[in-house]
Amino acid sequence: MAVHLAKGTRDFLPAQMNNRLKVIDTVRKVFLRFGFEPLETPTIERIETLTGKYGDEGEHLIFRILKRGAGAALGEVDMGLRYDLTVPLARVVAMNQGLPMPFKRYQIQPVWRAERPQKGRFREFYQCDVDTVGCESMVADAECVAVVDAALSELGFTDFTVRVNHRKILRAITEAIGEGERETMVLVAVDKLDKIGRDGVTKELLGKGVSQESLDQLWDILSVGSGWDALGALGEKLGESGQAAIAELGELRENAEAMGVNPARVTFDPTLARGLSYYTGPVFETVIHEGGVGSVSGGGRYDGLVGMFSGRNVPAVGVSLGLERIIVVMEEMGMLTSQASNTEVLVTVFSAETRSASLEAVGALRAAGVPAQVYLQKPGKLGKQFKHATKLGCTWAVTIGPDEAAAGMVQLKNLEDRTQETLTLAEAVAKVQG
Amino acid sequence: MAVHLAKGTRDFLPAQMNNRLKVIDTVRKVFLRFGFEPLETPTIERIETLTGKYGDEGEHLIFRILKRGAGAALGEVDMGLRYDLTVPLARVVAMNQGLPMPFKRYQIQPVWRAERPQKGRFREFYQCDVDTVGCESMVADAECVAVVDAALSELGFTDFTVRVNHRKILRAITEAIGEGERETMVLVAVDKLDKIGRDGVTKELLGKGVSQESLDQLWDILSVGSGWDALGALGEKLGESGQAAIAELGELRENAEAMGVNPARVTFDPTLARGLSYYTGPVFETVIHEGGVGSVSGGGRYDGLVGMFSGRNVPAVGVSLGLERIIVVMEEMGMLTSQASNTEVLVTVFSAETRSASLEAVGALRAAGVPAQVYLQKPGKLGKQFKHATKLGCTWAVTIGPDEAAAGMVQLKNLEDRTQETLTLAEAVAKVQG
Repeated sequence: MAVHLAKGTRDFLPAQMNNRLKVIDTVRKVFLRFGFEPLETPTIERIETLTGKYGDEGEHLIFRILKRGAGAALGEVDMGLRYDLTVPLARVVAMNQGLPMPFKRYQIQPVWRAERPQKGRFREFYQCDVDTVGCESMVADAECVAVVDAALSELGFTDFTVRVNHRKILRAITEAIGEGERETMVLVAVDKLDKIGRDGVTKELLGKGVSQESLDQLWDILSVGSGWDALGALGEKLGESGQAAIAELGELRENAEAMGVNPARVTFDPTLARGLSYYTGPVFETVIHEGGVGSVSGGGRYDGLVGMFSGRNVPAVGVSLGLERIIVVMEEMGMLTSQASNTEVLVTVFSAETRSASLEAVGALRAAGVPAQVYLQKPGKLGKQFKHATKLGCTWAVTIGPDEAAAGMVQLKNLEDRTQETLTLAEAVAKVQG
Repeated sequence: MAVHLAKGTRDFLPAQMNNRLKVIDTVRKVFLRFGFEPLETPTIERIETLTGKYGDEGEHLIFRILKRGAGAALGEVDMGLRYDLTVPLARVVAMNQGLPMPFKRYQIQPVWRAERPQKGRFREFYQCDVDTVGCESMVADAECVAVVDAALSELGFTDFTVRVNHRKILRAITEAIGEGERETMVLVAVDKLDKIGRDGVTKELLGKGVSQESLDQLWDILSVGSGWDALGALGEKLGESGQAAIAELGELRENAEAMGVNPARVTFDPTLARGLSYYTGPVFETVIHEGGVGSVSGGGRYDGLVGMFSGRNVPAVGVSLGLERIIVVMEEMGMLTSQASNTEVLVTVFSAETRSASLEAVGALRAAGVPAQVYLQKPGKLGKQFKHATKLGCTWAVTIGPDEAAAGMVQLKNLEDRTQETLTLAEAVAKVQG
């Protein structure tokens, strides 16, 4: 029988899982430090909770679950798999009206999208989101920038940049060039500036019927470039319409720097135009310069989305860390050890007669909190058992031969420097504990 | 718009999640101590991986995912949701022939079953499994008993019993009473002895056509009772046929005790007959006497199952901890704090003018690893902010008024004993770190 994984899915064997858990634990600790508390929502949601939320393209990517039971029509669907962590958050806020506000939650769970599988893109992948619901202050937005800075730093990254823009600056630009009605189309093109260059963007926009005059205005506005100095220059070009947004970004920047975020890591970029559909305020994207994976984090303020289930207007801002990409970069850069085993001590089995002494030793080590294993195969030559210990990455091997068993002692071998000594079990446990 | 969860699913808000993560972290640490390493498999599996594995009843409980794309027939299914953690393990072993054996893995992930939702039974719930694949030794079986003992002890339980039996003892009993052909039916009835008593079991078996003579033999055999003394007595009644199994259980018991398992917590019970379908050797079940939830853990040896995908015969033994039930008991017994927040310090905001000093303080606390928040609502009376801090469960509040800001100092208030002192920020951070 041929055995396969479902398309676009992966098993994570111990070496990979140990990496993943290390990254997740680090990220989780940083989230908690910032006052974001854990939330989990179900994998399966009612289909009507999911539909109509992700646009036409997203709608096709939802995995749908067949309705069960005698009453179900052929092909009838009643549930789907979680597509992101934001719609479930909105549902939770609507269903729990008594939640103390602001509600700061983190959520680290997989999501599912029926995309065509390709290198580095999967149908089941983890998202790590933090969101602050019920707070309008730019302190919350600055915390999103600060928490990404802290998480990436704690993971060991030093060379990354958080790019910041504001949805209303983008709107002001498209209005200034007379294309306010076709804002999304213009911004989708501008967002590609990094990739296809000014000529490419010009060609695309001309093709869509944007006038040469509008384009001239666009390039004039964007001639301010990027960086915080550009923010002031942009204010002069945009006049009244962009001022509130520019003031908000100024506040965000001040707040982030006051919180200790390295100013060299945060910059303003008027061409950043991500996730257009629901953002209403600041937007952010983080690029790690090492590893060439591009963006590893994105987010922004979306004051309309959380209220979609409750009808109430609830301000919210959040940011997501792309776990899968972060792990790819860390593995490529040797920032993770990829160890298949956490075991520190192998207790060998000299012979059937001394097995119970070996079991006592492994029991004592474990009771002291030391990750330890006892040799499980048929007891054979000690050399083979020591090799197994080295393969497991153990630092220590404990051996109890007939002499040691008779004397109530154990032999503790350091597999790194090949030294060994005869100790009581309690002494050996203490030595291994360091 | 009415908003609902999918039937049989739950959200876990922060207070519950903090409990769940505490339990999972504890269990995970114990698993690692025993040398079980983490594995994760996808939520979605090809439908042919899942079908034909769980019997007729299980087959109906698999959630099926509709095939996507233009080529799919109406109602066509190509994938399903993970139903347990054992079939995926078997698939992983088959697909990774180079896995070093024995392969000791733990897996803590949700599974899905389309059961009729009822109190305490859910359609999406976590399982925590450990399994040792590729080892015939009763040391591996003893480790299953020991790891359950260690995990429950580490979680704070003191009053529980691991009941042990052997699949081949059950077979020997049914053969001895002349019902070897209808073993499953007999054992399903005997398994209910706890619940419906001897009269109930007798009635059920008579109704199924078991003769009075067979029943007399059955009750005579089971008159040995339970406990390790009963194992020897049973050996005499069963003669040759049960001897190998009885010897294995004796080994299992010796190994477990050598590893330090409290002998009072492990007992032999010839009526234990769980998960008949695939067990081939020892079987175990653990009952917590506190809380009245019954079994919180079950497992056994299943030497035929892992080979089902590869055709090779691969011995395996494992045990599963029922996370949901364990959490229910721990919450009922007050063993978990159910805290909605991990924040230790709230930094108040005295006024807009001193906000940046407050942000600096919260940044310094977080950088030192202290879970800290800054007051996010519009700065109002300090009394209200202190109340918010108390509600969050904070031990400390930091306040920087204009005087402190001018002097480069902060006020640190202990919310438990209501004392406060004026310190430099560095001093305050050090004090909070303890």
